[in-house]
Amino acid sequence: MKIGVFDSGIGGLSVLKSLYEANLFDEIIYYGDTARVPYGVKDKDTIIKFCLEALDFFEKFQIEMLIIACNTASAYALDILRKNANIPIYGVIDAGVEATKKALKSKDERILVIATKATINSQEYQKRLIDQGFTRVEALATGLFVPIVEEGIFEGEFLQSAMKYYFEKVQTPDALILACTHFPFLMKSLGNYFGKNTKLIHSGDAIVEFLKEKQKLIFKENKAILHFYASSDVQSLKNTAKIWLNL
Amino acid sequence: MKIGVFDSGIGGLSVLKSLYEANLFDEIIYYGDTARVPYGVKDKDTIIKFCLEALDFFEKFQIEMLIIACNTASAYALDILRKNANIPIYGVIDAGVEATKKALKSKDERILVIATKATINSQEYQKRLIDQGFTRVEALATGLFVPIVEEGIFEGEFLQSAMKYYFEKVQTPDALILACTHFPFLMKSLGNYFGKNTKLIHSGDAIVEFLKEKQKLIFKENKAILHFYASSDVQSLKNTAKIWLNL
Repeated sequence: MKIGVFDSGIGGLSVLKSLYEANLFDEIIYYGDTARVPYGVKDKDTIIKFCLEALDFFEKFQIEMLIIACNTASAYALDILRKNANIPIYGVIDAGVEATKKALKSKDERILVIATKATINSQEYQKRLIDQGFTRVEALATGLFVPIVEEGIFEGEFLQSAMKYYFEKVQTPDALILACTHFPFLMKSLGNYFGKNTKLIHSGDAIVEFLKEKQKLIFKENKAILHFYASSDVQSLKNTAKIWLNL
Repeated sequence: MKIGVFDSGIGGLSVLKSLYEANLFDEIIYYGDTARVPYGVKDKDTIIKFCLEALDFFEKFQIEMLIIACNTASAYALDILRKNANIPIYGVIDAGVEATKKALKSKDERILVIATKATINSQEYQKRLIDQGFTRVEALATGLFVPIVEEGIFEGEFLQSAMKYYFEKVQTPDALILACTHFPFLMKSLGNYFGKNTKLIHSGDAIVEFLKEKQKLIFKENKAILHFYASSDVQSLKNTAKIWLNL
């Protein structure tokens, strides 16, 4: 199966990594809109416009499925993308909600969703979690974690200070949804901050489990062939991909 | 005189504020490329492409002068923009260098330039300062200050931690060039951090002085008429402008 993975930039490589390592596909085309990244601080109409342009981009590749790796794009554009396409399109939000359901024992356990401002404002995670019967859902925009990760800061004193800034008044959750592709890079530090009783939900791992079920995908012997495209500076994307995916 | 002010987003409003308050112009058209902000993390070719598109945008307004408020755009695109236009175009870098010359007594005083990664990598400030005979020029990419300012954080414990992260190993400079339009919002905190012997150079104030000299501009009785345009979410730009400019 030949699939596309779309992200606003390089963050989606954390989702690609999970998809690639799961050995479910023959060919994966990754496209990052690096010229216009980040989406998480932009308005709904702009995000939708950019996502529709990405859909056009994928047309020539005749992919059989499209994964929207970016949480902000998934939050605002998934429905519109589906209306404009004749292939299955999956976002990371449904997958993240499914993974959270599996990770928690009761509907009264505390869930904390952390994401960009745009993703949080869309209320998509919150609505879906409440629809599933969860009663204690808190959502927090922690947008500074995006440039912090892009700066290459994954631990240390400054990150501690950023976590304190955001989480000082937050009660320790039973599940923490990392609802932005950049946040898996902070898993260790976030895990240490909240302690071992907090389950961390990772979009990449969540979408792999989700697709296995929804699309009845099975393990393949061979690794997928990867192609990388970007709206600017594709070499920089490829370099990062090589490191992150151990290519 | 009718002029244009271009910025990658809303940060240039700090430059517009200085231009507006100086009462030098009849009409000012501000254009922010909010759909594709920030430029400071992007590559040279992309920045140049976006700046040339901005030049096209201004064509219909028949402006008599264009100010590039964004330091990153000034660093990479000023020469190319000038080649493609038949009006004077000024960037904030020459102005910042002029202001630094005036602020310091000797060429041996320490200068620290702080800016986005792209502006620092362009070496434009460093080259110009060294051309002017300065012998102690240090440049530091402090890109996280951009999202920190956009988050509305202008002081407090977390900002202290960010300043410590960047400046811990830096010697106190005699002049600190705030080479990004966002940084004037941190003037008070940066001033407190380095102490009163460090002179802070502000792009907006620098360009006003620069233009007065270069263009022999004089004080006008009436305030300029302002027009705001943006590549996305112009309402949000207008709202911010109203607050920042006390309109």
